[in-house]
Amino acid sequence: MSISEIDRLIQMLAKLPGLGPRSARRAALSLINNADAVMRPLAQALLTAAENVKPCSVCNNLDTTDPCAICSDGRRDQALLCAVEQVGDLWALERGASYRGLYHVLGGVLSPLDGIGPDDLAIDGLVARARGNGVAEVILATSATVDGRTTAHYIAERLEDADVQITVLAHGIPVGGELDYLDDGTLAAALRDRHSV
Amino acid sequence: MSISEIDRLIQMLAKLPGLGPRSARRAALSLINNADAVMRPLAQALLTAAENVKPCSVCNNLDTTDPCAICSDGRRDQALLCAVEQVGDLWALERGASYRGLYHVLGGVLSPLDGIGPDDLAIDGLVARARGNGVAEVILATSATVDGRTTAHYIAERLEDADVQITVLAHGIPVGGELDYLDDGTLAAALRDRHSV
Repeated sequence: MSISEIDRLIQMLAKLPGLGPRSARRAALSLINNADAVMRPLAQALLTAAENVKPCSVCNNLDTTDPCAICSDGRRDQALLCAVEQVGDLWALERGASYRGLYHVLGGVLSPLDGIGPDDLAIDGLVARARGNGVAEVILATSATVDGRTTAHYIAERLEDADVQITVLAHGIPVGGELDYLDDGTLAAALRDRHSV
Repeated sequence: MSISEIDRLIQMLAKLPGLGPRSARRAALSLINNADAVMRPLAQALLTAAENVKPCSVCNNLDTTDPCAICSDGRRDQALLCAVEQVGDLWALERGASYRGLYHVLGGVLSPLDGIGPDDLAIDGLVARARGNGVAEVILATSATVDGRTTAHYIAERLEDADVQITVLAHGIPVGGELDYLDDGTLAAALRDRHSV
């Protein structure tokens, strides 16, 4: 069938997170109308990334080099190790540009309901790194969800006898946030952790 | 820089309509994590479509054949011609599957403010087709906007002396729509065009 190549493209675009069938159709039309300017370069970028982007063997970050650019950057604080759930969380912290240590991407959180145990995450690697090469502090930057806290708690227990400081991110009012719209838990945490100006 | 290939992919994805920077990052991560299952096939689909999809020389529909599958389908009513603004509108009508005539994609609407005049649209082609090969009716299925109505009015004038019936789509209550949420103009049109059951 002659229409199927467009339909196939729409179906593939609709699989992307954030694109439904309607926006996939709009995206496909926009791509076809800009074949040389957008469509072919995007295809090339996809092929290049599929070829070259690999997980870092040290921290599981995604990069074109192994070890990744962060792990091999000698100017970063080698004594600081920040455990995150996903590469997207690492990207979020890097955008903030206030953290200059190393990372360890766990690949998810412990979730007994989904059958995800410690062996399914990169926890052994994190524990080995934390015990190994001059690490002074491990920041457990998992989500503030039940599973995220459980994971942080589990890792903290595994590192109990290691000579490293274990920290978690602070809870509090988001910058620019209005008190009126905050949930009670966040407000209580912000009040508990108040400090003098 | 080593991170730039991922950044480049994110920037290109963010150009698609419906994807912002945040969802482009999510899409890029999801693609990289499914390189063989999704990323390479998508790249291939993009290249195939860029290579093969062209506007139909008769009606401007996008397809891999010329004339397109609709124009070359002898079972469709060759006496019915439906003028639409964009290929997306044609797709919408085809999804409805209640129209079995031919199409003519104008490529937009007349818009003096944006400097779009009759020569920028495929109006001459439509007029020639309408006067030519046994067409009995031209449906002007442009949007119910000021520019869309202006375009329909202009085309109707150009076809005044042609031996074809000129029609426009009906206004009325959308199927499933509640009266309370309808604008006054639609409600007035629905009332004016009421019919006995």
